[in-house]
Amino acid sequence: MESTLYKAWLQYSEVKNPASRVTYTKLLGNVVVGVEATDDVMDAAIEELALASATMLGLTSQVTTEPTGASYVRIGTVTDAMDWLELAGDHESSASIKQDLKGLSTEGFVLRQIVEKQDSYVLLIGGSSKGVLYGVFHLLRLIAKGVELEGLEIREEPTNQLRMINQWDNADGSIERGYAGTSIFYHNGEITEHLARIKDYARMLASVGINSIAINNVNVHEVETRFITPELLPDVARVAGVFREYGISLFLSVNFAAPMQVGGLTTADPLDEGVRLWWRNTTDTIYRSIPDFGGFLVKADSEHRPGPFTYDRDHADGANVLAEALEPHGGIVIWRCFVYNCMQDWRDRSTDRARAAYDHFKPLDGKFKDNVLLQIKNGPMDFQVREPASPLFGTMKQTNQMLEFQITQEYTGQQRHVCYLVPQWKEVLDFDTHANGQGTEVKRVVDGSVFSMKYSGIAAVSNIGNDENWTGHTLAQANLYGYGRLIWNPECSSEDIAEEWARLTFGNDDQVVGIVCGILMKSWPIYESYTAPLSVGWMVTPHYHYGPDIDGYEYSRWGTYHFADRDGIGVDRTLATGTGYAAQYFPENAAMYESIESCPDELLLFFHHLPYSHQLDSGKTVIQHIYDTHFAGAEEAKQLQKAWSELEGKVDAERYTQVSERLDEQAEHAHHWRDVINTYFYRKSGVSDAAGRTIY
Amino acid sequence: MESTLYKAWLQYSEVKNPASRVTYTKLLGNVVVGVEATDDVMDAAIEELALASATMLGLTSQVTTEPTGASYVRIGTVTDAMDWLELAGDHESSASIKQDLKGLSTEGFVLRQIVEKQDSYVLLIGGSSKGVLYGVFHLLRLIAKGVELEGLEIREEPTNQLRMINQWDNADGSIERGYAGTSIFYHNGEITEHLARIKDYARMLASVGINSIAINNVNVHEVETRFITPELLPDVARVAGVFREYGISLFLSVNFAAPMQVGGLTTADPLDEGVRLWWRNTTDTIYRSIPDFGGFLVKADSEHRPGPFTYDRDHADGANVLAEALEPHGGIVIWRCFVYNCMQDWRDRSTDRARAAYDHFKPLDGKFKDNVLLQIKNGPMDFQVREPASPLFGTMKQTNQMLEFQITQEYTGQQRHVCYLVPQWKEVLDFDTHANGQGTEVKRVVDGSVFSMKYSGIAAVSNIGNDENWTGHTLAQANLYGYGRLIWNPECSSEDIAEEWARLTFGNDDQVVGIVCGILMKSWPIYESYTAPLSVGWMVTPHYHYGPDIDGYEYSRWGTYHFADRDGIGVDRTLATGTGYAAQYFPENAAMYESIESCPDELLLFFHHLPYSHQLDSGKTVIQHIYDTHFAGAEEAKQLQKAWSELEGKVDAERYTQVSERLDEQAEHAHHWRDVINTYFYRKSGVSDAAGRTIY
Repeated sequence: MESTLYKAWLQYSEVKNPASRVTYTKLLGNVVVGVEATDDVMDAAIEELALASATMLGLTSQVTTEPTGASYVRIGTVTDAMDWLELAGDHESSASIKQDLKGLSTEGFVLRQIVEKQDSYVLLIGGSSKGVLYGVFHLLRLIAKGVELEGLEIREEPTNQLRMINQWDNADGSIERGYAGTSIFYHNGEITEHLARIKDYARMLASVGINSIAINNVNVHEVETRFITPELLPDVARVAGVFREYGISLFLSVNFAAPMQVGGLTTADPLDEGVRLWWRNTTDTIYRSIPDFGGFLVKADSEHRPGPFTYDRDHADGANVLAEALEPHGGIVIWRCFVYNCMQDWRDRSTDRARAAYDHFKPLDGKFKDNVLLQIKNGPMDFQVREPASPLFGTMKQTNQMLEFQITQEYTGQQRHVCYLVPQWKEVLDFDTHANGQGTEVKRVVDGSVFSMKYSGIAAVSNIGNDENWTGHTLAQANLYGYGRLIWNPECSSEDIAEEWARLTFGNDDQVVGIVCGILMKSWPIYESYTAPLSVGWMVTPHYHYGPDIDGYEYSRWGTYHFADRDGIGVDRTLATGTGYAAQYFPENAAMYESIESCPDELLLFFHHLPYSHQLDSGKTVIQHIYDTHFAGAEEAKQLQKAWSELEGKVDAERYTQVSERLDEQAEHAHHWRDVINTYFYRKSGVSDAAGRTIY
Repeated sequence: MESTLYKAWLQYSEVKNPASRVTYTKLLGNVVVGVEATDDVMDAAIEELALASATMLGLTSQVTTEPTGASYVRIGTVTDAMDWLELAGDHESSASIKQDLKGLSTEGFVLRQIVEKQDSYVLLIGGSSKGVLYGVFHLLRLIAKGVELEGLEIREEPTNQLRMINQWDNADGSIERGYAGTSIFYHNGEITEHLARIKDYARMLASVGINSIAINNVNVHEVETRFITPELLPDVARVAGVFREYGISLFLSVNFAAPMQVGGLTTADPLDEGVRLWWRNTTDTIYRSIPDFGGFLVKADSEHRPGPFTYDRDHADGANVLAEALEPHGGIVIWRCFVYNCMQDWRDRSTDRARAAYDHFKPLDGKFKDNVLLQIKNGPMDFQVREPASPLFGTMKQTNQMLEFQITQEYTGQQRHVCYLVPQWKEVLDFDTHANGQGTEVKRVVDGSVFSMKYSGIAAVSNIGNDENWTGHTLAQANLYGYGRLIWNPECSSEDIAEEWARLTFGNDDQVVGIVCGILMKSWPIYESYTAPLSVGWMVTPHYHYGPDIDGYEYSRWGTYHFADRDGIGVDRTLATGTGYAAQYFPENAAMYESIESCPDELLLFFHHLPYSHQLDSGKTVIQHIYDTHFAGAEEAKQLQKAWSELEGKVDAERYTQVSERLDEQAEHAHHWRDVINTYFYRKSGVSDAAGRTIY
């Protein structure tokens, strides 16, 4: 039997409540399907139901086309449903069901409990087999949470069109910014033949509604460049087949220089006829192997990756040559906006990396083909503990846009510290860009509803690897889970997602759930408090990004500075006296950030260089805030340990011990962070702690 | 033909002066040897003479046992010489030669030009074939320098007994702290079968008098742990054979845990009978393969290496178990004193890494067997740009001691910056420990003359690798050359060594030699001036040690701090108010370092924490000194570039261009160092530059 670590939130633990057990057993004992030929996805849905029934209820479900008794689950697509509703004749809910089915998207589903004559059953209708699959996972969640099904009346559709995962996995088995072991996809330069774990990953992703995945790192190295060649396509196709069964389209990150590196051409100029032809032929070949191939993900002209700049072309030229090749097949290009000067001179204070995405891409609005999507990181820098939302959201009204989050905790504790990121993501999604007047939140830009984009959505960098528990830290599973749930419906609250994850993962014990949720909900603020006061980022060990190094990025080429001196700290990004970054926002936000008074404290040092004596809204000075948050943060990290320790004996020993060890490390490391940051600023400012605590 | 890069100082360039050519041709046309059976080393000496004659003079030497004409070189050992002198009967110099030969050590040689009846020849007599080999290289140096041989009368003996090289090469082909390509010894986990390059390395080493080499890293990993097993000994023996021909004994770095890792024992406790037996058997096996095996080099209980502490034993216990095994074979144990707490807490100001070697080893004086040598790094920290000499020298009067230098430029520019280290080494050697009253210089401690040690000498970490020019930077060849020459005779001046190297390497052009020597002689002071003011060390990028990172080691576990705050900088190592390190020296030095007034400026911040406003002997404040040296150092680095550029056309294009590129990089990087350090201290101190130069 697989371990609880491995099963993550798909534990399908035994249902213990006797009454529920009776009800659920009756229902799941018979799964009624349509007579139409099923597809792989429908098969996966049925298989999942069977698997869950077996472990939750010790049940072997019967799958039939007609009910064998009075209680059952009937599943099918809209087409199936119309037949059933026709046959069943009118009953009290049929009108309302028909209403629900109108315009149901292919990924949506309707879930009803129906009492009709002597029958009492659950009806699950998907907009397509994918909708059914999502509905099955939803139903299983309800059962796992012990929800009473009577009166069940649910209609769900995903808010976002593309719900994507980016794997930063390399063919050599390493994972860029991976903190949970080696790749599940690659080993020793080859695509794995062991597909069982990939299938379980597909199940996990589908269970939270993910529908796309790019399976290789955006930094495309030598072997991965050849994934699009006939030599390696069969291996890629094998992986695509696994994901296909779970409604997930496969994408590849491609190397812009591939026409030269594998095509033998002398150029990769996107306007060169030979290059265009090469991409067209290459893409045609891919689709012969993988008919539902999603498309290409591209990091170009960024951090030494090749791109159109080499040929004096712009990003639109670069993206369009790929888009043209993909267009006949319905494929898309996802072009990353993480483009900036990574050879900046720290002495030059006029250049501001935060400006880069906007400065590079805004002028190109309208120039991209309509199957190109720009993938914009949530903030202007790089997945820091706290950044403002990227000013690019909503500014390119004629360009498909999607948002990029990072689930892997590169700058947020690397899955050694617990840091539940859903609240951070929600802040980004809820940020009002004012692009189209008040109420133009980022979530409404990237779900395509404000500017009616043809393609839109959200992607995120995965946090999984070969570790038994997938994510290194068991509590980091909540981020993968939460990501999927949140982008399915950005109106979900962080608390609800945390609670749902905790129930599915650790079982329906309210004490356990309460403690786990408490830890999760506090974790981002705690991590912020001992690492990144007032939005000062980059105070981390260069390259590794784990642990404090206040000046680590201060004199580097990466454009990542805080300018702390003996008097003050922060980056002046105002229009009046700074880099002008604040003015990239729509006027309401620009004005808010421009002024020290209206700029929110938590972003103050991102936008302003201020003396240590500056008084915050809280009434504290900047320096005292630094000291206080660090003393408090380290203490709170210790409290997480303590809170978890109450679960000894209530969580299985394996997971209990593992999480304990990580929380121990976190507490110790938070203490280290506290002292390094406090000492650094004390030595620099000379200001003593008002509370007289020890600063070294 | 091999490139000038590769031939380093063994260019054997064509002799161009017609008169010299005639003289040398006459001499070298006939090499007269003794009738006694020669050995490999003698063969190597003859081979080297032949090789040099061929390229310097286009000559094929005749090797005979009797002269074929009136002009020749006669070479042999003391035994041979006695026969010749007997036969030749008395002539004017024979008495003085006999005098010279009295007590000539096996590694010494006598070199005479003799005019006798109608003959005029050069007589080279070695204390053994090794002495002959060293004499041949000496003679060839004279010829390469165009020295007039008339009246030649030289008697040389090496001052130091062990003249050793430590390779930090790993079996995977990497070199710890190597900056000149991969290992010439290993590739892909195996000992190379390509011995030609190793032979050329042996020639280079022998040419400057090196007589011992440890061929693997002191951090002994998995594969290298097995070098002492029958499986891999044949490969090691092959390499030993190459070095043997050049009079160089081979040593291995061993893993203290080898009895467990390869011996299958359950302990490596040095007092365990099984362990003692295992080391004895293992050592016996080694000597069956390599009868002249030198012994073991050991890094134990240091930086996570295993050692006797695990078993609650001390370093003497650890070293003695190995010494006992080596003793019957005449082998020795070299036990490194680089032992300190590398998990120090930076918050704990009472612990001082500088104290560690003394604190660990001083109490063990007299406890080591007499075939154990302690290898002591030149300074108390770790090969910084400037450190005081280790206080351990001369304090252990009943223990064999040797000195460890680092030729590879770990902290001194990594062979990208030019930094001629002979002057630094000379300062250490000339440092008067006062161990036995005034005049007890380090050089007299480590050459064994003060305390009559059985074994003594000097080792250094090599700077070579597979790069065509061996050392990455061609000018870094001077460090390997200079190391050998200096430890042969520590009375040599840095200037003379530099000049000799330049003549051998670039030819006898005075302008070239003048410029090259100018660059070399200025290089250490220049490097110091832009990187390490007033002996503040460790302001480098952690792990890599290249480039500035002022706080990089400030909050680390390595015990490497400068404690800079807004008011001042430096480590208080006085007895009165600091860590007490200064008191580890003999009283005269302790007093000198203890007092701010008498402590030399260049070591001031190593011993004292001082305000930026402190006035130096120069009359400048500490902060102004930092600014001035950094502006000057960066400017001087530029001047090196300029000086070298005058050699265009005078040095072959390959070496000219390569050195030019490195000097360009150095100038640019020195500029970066300048600005980072100045900005750091300006931001911290708030003190403006008195000269009003730009600080960012």
